[in-house]
Order: sequence, then C-alpha cells, then structure tokens
Amino acid sequence: MSEYIAPCDCRRAFISGFDGSAGTAIITEQKAAMWTDGRYFLQAAQQMDSNWTLMKMGLKDMPTQEDWLVSVLPEGSKVGVDPFIIPADQWKRMSKALKSAGHVLVPVKENLIDAIWMDRPQRPCKPLMTLDLSYTGVGWKEKIAALRAKMVERKVLWLVVTALDEVSWLFNLRGSDVEYNPVFFAYAVIGTDTIRLFISGDRMADPSTREHLLLDSALEAEFKIQVVPYESVLTELQAICVGLSPKEKVWLSDKASYALTEAIPKAHRYLTPYTPICIAKAVKNTAETEGMRRAHIKDAVALCELFNWLEKEVPKGSVTEISAADKAEEFRSQQNGFVDLSFATISSTGPNGAIIHYKPVPETNRALSGNEIYLLDSGAQYKDGTTDVTRTMHFGTPSAYEKECFTYVLKGHIAVSAAIFPNGTKGHLLDSFARSALWDCGLDYLHGTGHGVGCFLNVHEGPCGISYKTFADEPLEAGMIVSDEPGYYEDESFGIRIENVVLVIPAKTKYNFSNRGSLTFEPLTLVPIQTKMISIPLLTQKEVREVVDGGEQTHSKGPKDPSLVALPSF
Amino acid sequence: MSEYIAPCDCRRAFISGFDGSAGTAIITEQKAAMWTDGRYFLQAAQQMDSNWTLMKMGLKDMPTQEDWLVSVLPEGSKVGVDPFIIPADQWKRMSKALKSAGHVLVPVKENLIDAIWMDRPQRPCKPLMTLDLSYTGVGWKEKIAALRAKMVERKVLWLVVTALDEVSWLFNLRGSDVEYNPVFFAYAVIGTDTIRLFISGDRMADPSTREHLLLDSALEAEFKIQVVPYESVLTELQAICVGLSPKEKVWLSDKASYALTEAIPKAHRYLTPYTPICIAKAVKNTAETEGMRRAHIKDAVALCELFNWLEKEVPKGSVTEISAADKAEEFRSQQNGFVDLSFATISSTGPNGAIIHYKPVPETNRALSGNEIYLLDSGAQYKDGTTDVTRTMHFGTPSAYEKECFTYVLKGHIAVSAAIFPNGTKGHLLDSFARSALWDCGLDYLHGTGHGVGCFLNVHEGPCGISYKTFADEPLEAGMIVSDEPGYYEDESFGIRIENVVLVIPAKTKYNFSNRGSLTFEPLTLVPIQTKMISIPLLTQKEVREVVDGGEQTHSKGPKDPSLVALPSF
Repeated sequence: MSEYIAPCDCRRAFISGFDGSAGTAIITEQKAAMWTDGRYFLQAAQQMDSNWTLMKMGLKDMPTQEDWLVSVLPEGSKVGVDPFIIPADQWKRMSKALKSAGHVLVPVKENLIDAIWMDRPQRPCKPLMTLDLSYTGVGWKEKIAALRAKMVERKVLWLVVTALDEVSWLFNLRGSDVEYNPVFFAYAVIGTDTIRLFISGDRMADPSTREHLLLDSALEAEFKIQVVPYESVLTELQAICVGLSPKEKVWLSDKASYALTEAIPKAHRYLTPYTPICIAKAVKNTAETEGMRRAHIKDAVALCELFNWLEKEVPKGSVTEISAADKAEEFRSQQNGFVDLSFATISSTGPNGAIIHYKPVPETNRALSGNEIYLLDSGAQYKDGTTDVTRTMHFGTPSAYEKECFTYVLKGHIAVSAAIFPNGTKGHLLDSFARSALWDCGLDYLHGTGHGVGCFLNVHEGPCGISYKTFADEPLEAGMIVSDEPGYYEDESFGIRIENVVLVIPAKTKYNFSNRGSLTFEPLTLVPIQTKMISIPLLTQKEVREVVDGGEQTHSKGPKDPSLVALPSF
Repeated sequence: MSEYIAPCDCRRAFISGFDGSAGTAIITEQKAAMWTDGRYFLQAAQQMDSNWTLMKMGLKDMPTQEDWLVSVLPEGSKVGVDPFIIPADQWKRMSKALKSAGHVLVPVKENLIDAIWMDRPQRPCKPLMTLDLSYTGVGWKEKIAALRAKMVERKVLWLVVTALDEVSWLFNLRGSDVEYNPVFFAYAVIGTDTIRLFISGDRMADPSTREHLLLDSALEAEFKIQVVPYESVLTELQAICVGLSPKEKVWLSDKASYALTEAIPKAHRYLTPYTPICIAKAVKNTAETEGMRRAHIKDAVALCELFNWLEKEVPKGSVTEISAADKAEEFRSQQNGFVDLSFATISSTGPNGAIIHYKPVPETNRALSGNEIYLLDSGAQYKDGTTDVTRTMHFGTPSAYEKECFTYVLKGHIAVSAAIFPNGTKGHLLDSFARSALWDCGLDYLHGTGHGVGCFLNVHEGPCGISYKTFADEPLEAGMIVSDEPGYYEDESFGIRIENVVLVIPAKTKYNFSNRGSLTFEPLTLVPIQTKMISIPLLTQKEVREVVDGGEQTHSKGPKDPSLVALPSF
C-alpha cells in the first residue's frame, strides 16, 4: 500500500506481466481482468497476454470492479483478497456491493500469488541508517512523548503506526528497503507506557542502531523499546485488544489495511484520516529546514553542471532522454550526502513531454535536439533532505507559442509562490492561482499544483498539498514544505512544467488578518529557469519585480525566488 | 427543513422563546438545552429564560448534542424526534452515538410541541400562481419527460420530490406559503407513467390552476396528475415501496427527512446529493435569463430611486436602518410584477454593518449619517425573476482606510466577475480570486463568495456556488446564476460588501481549452457602485479596463459589468 514497493510485493506484475505503478487484477475461475487508468492503457495492453481483459478506468460505461464481479460470478460466490493489501474503506465498499448481490468478500490469510510464485524475491531487509539531532532537530524520545500527549488529548490508549515513513520519522531511522523512499519495513505500536517496534531480521544487532534506540541502556520504562518480529504485528495487536476495557481506544489511520483495522474491535477503533505523526512530520523544524536548504544547494549545483553539459553535448546529437537522466544522477551522486534519487527521473523531449508520468525506456527513448522542448523532473535523497525540481528548456530557438505557454506556466508558478494567505488556509484554495494566467487564454493542466515533500523521506507526503482534487487536506502552516508545479501539456507535441519546492513561512502583511497570522512561501529550489523560454511582455510589472527582487516593494519579505534572481545567467 | 419556515413550524421559538434562524432545542425530563451559532449567542441568551442552557456552538469544549445527551441521560434512555424535521444523515449520526452509549433514538409520530401548542397557527394554504411559457420557457410536461429520461438513465422507477422549490419549478407554479420564497407546501412523486402531487386544501379548485395542470383535459395517461392530500405522502410512499420488485429503485435527495428516507427500504433507496430537478433548475433557459434581466432592470430603477432619496434625506438626520429598508421595499413594490422581497433586508450602518446577517430591529436601529458607512443587502421577487444586491456607500467623506478596504473588496469582486475558467470547473475553485487582493494586505472575510440564485424562486439555491466551505458543489455551466459578493468586516466599526448576481456565459478564449469550452460571468445586476468609495490608484490598468469597457481589450466579450460602466454617474 506504499507508493513505491519492493520486488517481492510486485504480485500483480508477476501474475499479469503488467508492471505499471497503478492497477488491480481480479481473477475468477474463468476470467482475468485488469483495472488501470489512462496513463497505462497502452502499456498494460502490450504487457498482458490474451487471457487478460483490460478495464480502462475513466472510460464511459467501463464497469467498476464490484459491478464486473457481480456480472460474472455464479450465484453465492466467495471473493478472496489478502487483507494486508486492501485499505479498510475499499474493503467495506466492495464487501457491501458483493453482499447486496448475494456474494461474500473473504480475507485470505495465505496470499495465493505467493503460493504459486516459486522464485519470489525475499522481502528486503537492508541495514538501517541512524539520524542524529543535527539532522532531525528532535530526538525520538521527545517525539514519543509529544505523541503520547496527543494520545492523552484524544483519550486513546494505543496508536498503531503503519505508514513506513511515519515509523522512520518517529525513530529517526532511515532504510533502503524500497526504491526512492528511504524507509524500511516496520510497524510500531505505541502505548501510554510501552513502545513496540515490529521489524524483521537482525537489523537490531547493529551496534549504532542499538545505541541510537538505547536498547542496552538503563532507561525509563516508558521509553524502553520492545523489538518484535515484523510478522507478529497482527497477533500482538489482537492480544492488546483482548485486554482493553470498554471505552479504551486504539488510534489508527483510516488508510490502514483491512487486516489491522479489523484486528481492532469496532468499539475500540479510533480512526482519523491522518495520524498525529503524519501532521507533526509535515511541519519541519529548524534542523530539518536547514537540511532541506543544504540539499537544495547541492541539487542546484548538480543540475547546473548538468545544464552546462547538456548545452555542450546536445548540439552533437548524442544525448538521449535516458543518457541525460543518467548524467543528472551522476552529477547528483557526486554531491556529499547523496543517498538515492527521490523518484524515477522524468526525462522527456518533444511529444514525450506531454506524457505527465513519462519515464524513458529504450523503446521510447528520444534524442535531445535543438528543435524540441526538453522537460526534466527529477530529485534526490540526500542525508540532509529531499529534492524535487522540474525545469523545461530549449536548446535551439523556442517557437512563439512555446514561449507563450511557458510564460503562462511561469506566471502561475509565481502566483502561487508569491501568494499571501491567512494562517489556517488549506492548500487546495491556492490551486486556481496557478491556473489563472493559463485559463485566461483557454489553457489548463489536469494535475494538481503541489504535494507535500518529506525531509530525507518520501518525496510525496501528506497531509498538505495544493490541488483542486483534494478537500480534506490539512491547513498549511509555517514549516510545511510543498511543491509548486503548474504545467501545460500539448498532446503529441510538448510538455512544460516549472517546479520548485517551497517552504511555508510567516509573511508580513499590513493588517495581519487581525492577528490570525499571514503566510507565504519561500522557494528552497535554487535551480535557474531558462530565460529564453520567457516572453517578457507577457509578465506584469509586479511579476517582474517578484522575479527580480522578491517582491520587496509589495511586501517586506526576503528575496523571493533565488532561482529567478539567477535568471540572466542561464 | 427549508431556509424560511411558516409560523406553524416555528416550534423551537414557541418552546424556548428564541426565534433566531438557526438553533436546536433538546429537552429532557430535567433539563433543556439550546444549540446555536455565534450569530445568535446574544439574542438566544436574551430571549430564553433560566430554564434553558445555551450551548454556544463553535466554542472550545462545548459538547455536541450527542455528547451532552450521553452525559445527562439515565441508563437506557429513549430520545424522541419528529422524523419529518430531521435529515436522514443527522438521524444516522445521532442514532449511532446514542446507541453506542446504550440509548436509543426513536421517531415520534405525533410532534410533542404541537400537542401542547394550543394556539398554533394553521399551516398556510395560500393561492397558487401559474407561470406560462413566457416566464418558464419550458412546460411542465416537458420537464416531467426530461426528468423521466434521467430516471431511465439511472435505472430508477420513482423519484420523490421533497424540496419545495423543486416542486414549484417542476410544475411551473408559485405560492406564498412562506416568506420570501415563492413556494407552497407540497411533495411530488414521479413514476415512469404516473404523477402524484401531494398538496393541501382546495387549491386545486382554482380554474386557472386546473387549466394549467390540465386536470380536466383529455391527456396521455403518463401526464395525468393525481392530486393527493399533503399529509398522505408517507403512506402513499410506503404503499409504492411494498409493490417494488427487487432491484427497483426510488430516487431521493440525501438531504430528505428521516421519515421519507426510512419509508423506502434500504435496498430500494437511490440517494444522491442533488436530484436531477435541482440540477436542471439551476441551468436557466433563455426565457428565464431574459426574465432575470427584466427583474434586474426594475430592481436597479428602484435602488437608484432609493439612493437619490437617501442622498437627499440622510443629511436631514431622519433616515434609520429600518426606514431605509422600508423605503427600498416601497420603491421596489412600485415596480411592475413585484411579488415580495427575496429575503429580510440587511440595512446596516456603522458597527451594525460588521454583523454579517444583521436585520435591523427597533432595539438596534441606527440613524444613517454622513459619518458612517452604510451597507444595504436586499433583493426582491418579481414574477420575472429574483434579485439580490449589496451596495456599500458613504453619505459624507469615507476615510482613507475605509476606501482602501472597499477597493480591495471591489478588486475581489472584479476578479471573480472577470474570471475565465474551463467548462466543468467547480465554483469553490474561484473563491480565492475574490480574496487575493484582501489577503495581500492581511484582510479576509469569513463567508463564502457566492450562492446559486433561483429564477422567481429561492434566492439561495443549490447545487452551485462559490465558497471555500463547500466541495461537493456541481460544476458551473452556462446558464447557471450565482452571486459574487466578497466583503470585509471590521468588528464594531463597519461592514463592506459588494454583491452582483452574475450569469455564467460562454467566453471566447484564444485556445478554448482544446474545445472543452470556456466560461465566464456576465453581471445581471445593474445597480451603480459608489465611486467615492474607490481608491483609484489601488486598481490595476486591467481592472480599470474591466470596469470601463468590460475588458474588451483582454478578451472579446460584451460589456462586462454594466453597473460599473455607470460608475461615474453615482
């Protein structure tokens, strides 16, 4: 249920051949069907054989999984699912639909794919990395204490931590069990005076980890960590629940698996969309924001080196989307504290740029040239922090239309970056600011404008963001970090996106919302934006000021967007 | 469950004395408690005696109705409620909370207030008004046919119409059973070949109504209207449900009462947030928009007369909030086709302007003067259409700060009015446009920016609007009519609001969203805005153009805002 998964969890790819990042396979005695979205219609059709029916989600009259099951199942069927890989709310919906048609959804304890997957890879169990206070700002004992204060406030006795990045953040540990996300397979269950960490292998044998977690120290009992095998989380949770008195509650995210949710009797469940860890993790402290700043300096150095290299090499005709992405990784990996990329690099030129989640593969790999726009959306994990930046550039002469579109996107990017808003504002309310200049000319883009960004953690994290698609996001507050990435995509022609990672900071305003407080953004990204793509006459005086001096004249903040201050140099 | 209710339904006011527009009374054997919101803390405290506990909703640690009940009830209590005046979702929530504490929520068929309310007024049963095609554009038979097409599309056999304005719209009838909303007490149940209209009294004896509904005509069977007594809706609905085969569905709004919802067995319920009538009603046809235009011309004439009168009379010191409101009604009532006001006039000067839902009463009535801002939010029902307009003015010399605030509000008003956006955009995404100028200086207002407006129907109607508070609104489409009313309120000092009613119209844009279509607004309101309140230097060139020539130079639409074209004249 994570965004990035380990090879041992790629069960759908094993059974169907289709390895896109989104898809659900349903297999009956006679049929096999695959639901996926528009990004993957082509790829899924190519990768799957004729045994499979492709269900193109979003197309009109395409049956839902529930409707399809009801239409093909013989009367009184049982539908099985691994309860650890289905969220509780999805279970509930599907179970209800099947029940009303006379069928039943049942949890299958042994995963049936695993039963036939002979060469299934081992679950990764890579060494852990400990982060000291200079990176985290707050020790894990302090985090646990603050968490327990929240538990007391909500009158819950236990909290189950299921999201991998939440476990990593809570204990100031990092791992490399999956690609791109520096996390490790684990659960945690926090009681009012106990801490259970569910983790596999002999990772706790490492002396620095033992020391970090104070496993061998004399310690107040309530901070003593019990290390428990990963696989026993369900039975331990069940045992905890057996001991509960009436009205005693267990806190769990409503996005947790059916297996864990169901282990807690309904009367004892306390479900919220976001755990207190998720919310605390989103608000970065000084050590974390300073780390993010260091990471973004390194990242900008690497990308400046790349751009310099591209300007020299592209005219020779030897650079492709894949080699440019590799070179970006090479320059980044030379930076101090580099750990990994933060996601699969989107390196796309010409028509490939219009595929929003494009990842170059040999079959689609295209040479960069002086005739096409090049879009690079990439980022890295440094021990200090996480980066995610998109720049769009041209190595020849962009057309007037390309410059026009780019400038509208830039105007939207500036509008969000320069936005001032009251404390307590939810990010989705800022989404239209990014679109206004595009809308005025009848252009739009069909993705959100920003996502939360972790600090040496997941590049996509909740609970905040800037997207018209969401509503239940948490309000933005100073210390949160999100991306600002409007775009424009012309099908079969080009893609444009300008993305900075920005930090929510207090703003100085004339009237300060009756002391409610004012917020704005400060860009952390320092990578230059290519000036030749800008149609200067389309910028307002205010936008030019915002670009050049950080809007000093309209409100008294520091320089607004250092990447734009650096504009003339690229 | 309507916004405006008849005296016979003011049961909470009868039992408690508190007659504000929002409040819930709960009475146990020992206690009586009243929940209301911040608008009414003072009024409720004044109107209720010491038997009542005031529950100030929104204050920290104030118990919810459910929590309070659980805290005061003896073990195993029954809580009764009239199932006709509680929405099904609220019933569900309360029932669940009570059940988990060992109590039970029960429907009480005889309303217990009515049982002790000796001089309870009769339910109004005023004559009906029929609207011909010149007003409605579409006959009721056509509306029924279109509705049945939607029912076929969704595979439902029956549709229950509970909202009074939906019944009025469907049959092209109007009434005056409640204040301000030109509706009448009725239900309708539409089958695939039957029409049942539940309505009281001898209203169907009127020859023009009989003719309008073709009650005495030879007619295709499926358009024959069965007139049924209002009170028998529940038993009729139960009878219909008894006859349903499995999988046959009855369509009902999820905002309907528990009584009607519960009458439909769960397996047969088809609930949606908006009925197809609600959505069809929101999209005005040419006859309706032309009617709305006529209504707005009359309304502007009446308000110009008022403003002329105010300019002469206010300096004499004899005009009060109440007399100004009365004068506005007098001028409006002289207009052809005037029926009623569309809501209680908000006539407020100085500090009273900061009370957003202020209605002047003798105790608060304040004289208009040359020293204070005056805010007038008013509207009327004409047979052609419904108006709702707010203007804020000064009869002396406004302060620089007042002008500054007014101009930010005006900039927000223009930003929404001039917004261009793709077809399919939901109104809440435009809300921030109205706030941006205010936000830049640290000012905000705590209400939504716009609501749907009916055509000679309710001045507040779904399913569209422009508010940061909503998310489940329906997308805006050409023909919908909403208000555009940003404001700014300085507590204990003044209130500013600028409100036009605007029509969603197609826009011409350079690239037209790849043929998805472009939308913008055209103001219907023609009432001048007072120029002396504007601080011209705060307007951008584009805003000035937008004001003066309707933005001709930025996009090719007709004159944008006639009320602003008329600016220099007031």
